[in-house]
Amino acid sequence: MEKPVCVIIGIGPKNGRAFAQRFAHEGYAVALLSRSTDYSSGLAAELGGKAYACDVTDPKAIKHAFAQVREDLGDVDVLLYNAGSGKFGTFDDVPDDEFEKGWQINVRGLLQSTREVVGPMREKGSGAIIVTGATASLRGKPFTAAFASAKAAQRSLAQSFARQLGPEGIHVALVIVDGGIGTDDQSGDEGTHLRPSDIAETVYHLATQPKSAWSFEVDVRPFKENW
Amino acid sequence: MEKPVCVIIGIGPKNGRAFAQRFAHEGYAVALLSRSTDYSSGLAAELGGKAYACDVTDPKAIKHAFAQVREDLGDVDVLLYNAGSGKFGTFDDVPDDEFEKGWQINVRGLLQSTREVVGPMREKGSGAIIVTGATASLRGKPFTAAFASAKAAQRSLAQSFARQLGPEGIHVALVIVDGGIGTDDQSGDEGTHLRPSDIAETVYHLATQPKSAWSFEVDVRPFKENW
Amino acid sequence: MEKPVCVIIGIGPKNGRAFAQRFAHEGYAVALLSRSTDYSSGLAAELGGKAYACDVTDPKAIKHAFAQVREDLGDVDVLLYNAGSGKFGTFDDVPDDEFEKGWQINVRGLLQSTREVVGPMREKGSGAIIVTGATASLRGKPFTAAFASAKAAQRSLAQSFARQLGPEGIHVALVIVDGGIGTDDQSGDEGTHLRPSDIAETVYHLATQPKSAWSFEVDVRPFKENW
Amino acid sequence: MEKPVCVIIGIGPKNGRAFAQRFAHEGYAVALLSRSTDYSSGLAAELGGKAYACDVTDPKAIKHAFAQVREDLGDVDVLLYNAGSGKFGTFDDVPDDEFEKGWQINVRGLLQSTREVVGPMREKGSGAIIVTGATASLRGKPFTAAFASAKAAQRSLAQSFARQLGPEGIHVALVIVDGGIGTDDQSGDEGTHLRPSDIAETVYHLATQPKSAWSFEVDVRPFKENW
Repeated sequence: MEKPVCVIIGIGPKNGRAFAQRFAHEGYAVALLSRSTDYSSGLAAELGGKAYACDVTDPKAIKHAFAQVREDLGDVDVLLYNAGSGKFGTFDDVPDDEFEKGWQINVRGLLQSTREVVGPMREKGSGAIIVTGATASLRGKPFTAAFASAKAAQRSLAQSFARQLGPEGIHVALVIVDGGIGTDDQSGDEGTHLRPSDIAETVYHLATQPKSAWSFEVDVRPFKENW
Repeated sequence: MEKPVCVIIGIGPKNGRAFAQRFAHEGYAVALLSRSTDYSSGLAAELGGKAYACDVTDPKAIKHAFAQVREDLGDVDVLLYNAGSGKFGTFDDVPDDEFEKGWQINVRGLLQSTREVVGPMREKGSGAIIVTGATASLRGKPFTAAFASAKAAQRSLAQSFARQLGPEGIHVALVIVDGGIGTDDQSGDEGTHLRPSDIAETVYHLATQPKSAWSFEVDVRPFKENW
Repeated sequence: MEKPVCVIIGIGPKNGRAFAQRFAHEGYAVALLSRSTDYSSGLAAELGGKAYACDVTDPKAIKHAFAQVREDLGDVDVLLYNAGSGKFGTFDDVPDDEFEKGWQINVRGLLQSTREVVGPMREKGSGAIIVTGATASLRGKPFTAAFASAKAAQRSLAQSFARQLGPEGIHVALVIVDGGIGTDDQSGDEGTHLRPSDIAETVYHLATQPKSAWSFEVDVRPFKENW
Repeated sequence: MEKPVCVIIGIGPKNGRAFAQRFAHEGYAVALLSRSTDYSSGLAAELGGKAYACDVTDPKAIKHAFAQVREDLGDVDVLLYNAGSGKFGTFDDVPDDEFEKGWQINVRGLLQSTREVVGPMREKGSGAIIVTGATASLRGKPFTAAFASAKAAQRSLAQSFARQLGPEGIHVALVIVDGGIGTDDQSGDEGTHLRPSDIAETVYHLATQPKSAWSFEVDVRPFKENW
């Protein structure tokens, strides 16, 4: 029998790695999309998944990568949209092209990726799309002029998705990561950083919530965070 | 070895029952507090727990009930504050005493219950307090003049708790139930009501989240809910 | 011709004084309600208004004061609910009776005062009720366990009022004061404190907004505030 | 003596017209920027202002228009960013280029326009930038996938501006228009639509608020609006 397929966009040694590990461990075939495969190819090998180069600022690259995923693994059951590193700086400091890239990565890329996976999800009447948000999704500060603006747009788009796709049986959710992300080598007892695998715990919970009680927005933060 | 103790306040055939079942199933000794034990005593027997009569509008009753719980079962590890049925109606319709009762049940009772359990939790540096909120926690509508006002105060108080107790190792969280609560006899495929045991799934997830990535506020709603 | 009547609840040398001055200046007969008339009687004399002793934690006192206002000045056109000094402290520190008083002052007193003025407003199809909120109306912090909880309940209640009474021609609004309140002796150029008469500027604007474009919630803060 | 200068971006027979009339009436030289000058040239003539063609999706056009404004009228004192008609439709319906245009008009255009005016404002330590938002600024619905996403990003960016520029003496504010906009021919007694000149009343209030008590976010809606 075929494994369910989980696509993770945005692969690095923190969240991307932890999400991939968790879903692979739970029996998913994992497709790892990131700008370069330098890091992701080793992880894919380790997890029996596949790595794909995909710059989400490039619509053609997104189209191409998902076509490959479908050919290699079949229809997508879970999409984890974890792309979204942001340029920090005030509006004075952020170059125009970086400002635009922030929007392309966090917003346009999410729109296109959703379009790529949603067809078969609709046919099955099931599926999950989980987006990695940040405190900046909720407010704009001077030093997050570009990042927060993109994250707020992403949150709004995810809301539109959730409200439209929920009734079709597709669960869209947003995880607001409120704090610095550390590593799994930390015990978590420091209370100052989120362990990626602990975030993955909540992401996996969301992806498997029973449909009579779906969450849209869930915040996660270290227990000593000042918020 | 002694079982961990879970106190559930507000026991009826929906959420209260489902929360008790879930935590009993996971190995907790469950203490069921409700105004009358007519319903809860049977449930307690079924789950190997204990039922206590406790009218949360009465501070002495709260004090007494927790003293009994401690004597019978020991220190409390998890508190599920599920009291909170509200009187609906515009401000024209709600009698003064009902308005006040709404505040006593949702807010003052939560304050007192938290005070009752928090001492040993602080000593251990662990514990969880999960509050059942509602859409009304987030906004006041004409027909929720009393209920929403109490729920908003409850949410704010839970936030104060979370921000203070988090760094002490105690997890405080709020579940926003956004929709009508049905029964576990429903499959959940109708999409119109939340199944109590599906809400319990998220409550249990919160009570066991790793402390590097704690959630404070989580919404849950049926997948067909219009929100 | 009779002057329109403005009742201001909560009179001190800061907001209460500034609101009274502004509305008196704009041609209103001002009724000043506060626990003691030590301060307010001089202000009333100065402004051609009237001072009333009214402890808003006492329902009978509220009933009595409004009866006097109606007898002395007639029906109320504008109610400025400015009561709401709060007890600061964590939930560990705040005594039970102070916690309850916070709710009585900020929430129950607003409910009762609204009931006292709303009848004639409904008959005329006009009137304004403006509530003084605070940052704590929006979130609970450790040191605002009592105050924020009361302020959140007040905000929710004001929302219920606004949604119900708006269509009846009565404007209910909430001003979120986000920052320390200074004095009118300050120029405002310091940027660290709100001048009471500058807050009054926005309160008066709200009380006279044309009804096709009413605001419910308006924040005000000093220009150098860190928020 | 030279008149203060108010630039209004987004000129049509509703808000744009009303804002221009109000600020011209208050003694401002008004510069009207819109994609075409078909409508705005007549209005400019009527108000003794100037009309400029400026497609805000085109960065060069923005740069050019502001250079002209500075040459014709001098430094800008007030910027009213009223561009922002949005494409409605679900994410299935909205073409990629319309989705991108929504972001260019509401977000990138605001960033660039702010950059164009902020230099002299900083030198003077004064100025106002008021942005026209919408209910969609606060939430994404199925039919506002593109519009709400852009409006949420705009709100976040305006927040970043407000927090950074406030301490420099520049007031940035957002007006959330929550309801359908009608015409000034309506009396406002219908309660179903906002009269543009009534919105202008609040915009002008914001532009002239004393700096010790500045608002960032103000909602406006017709008194019969269901919200």
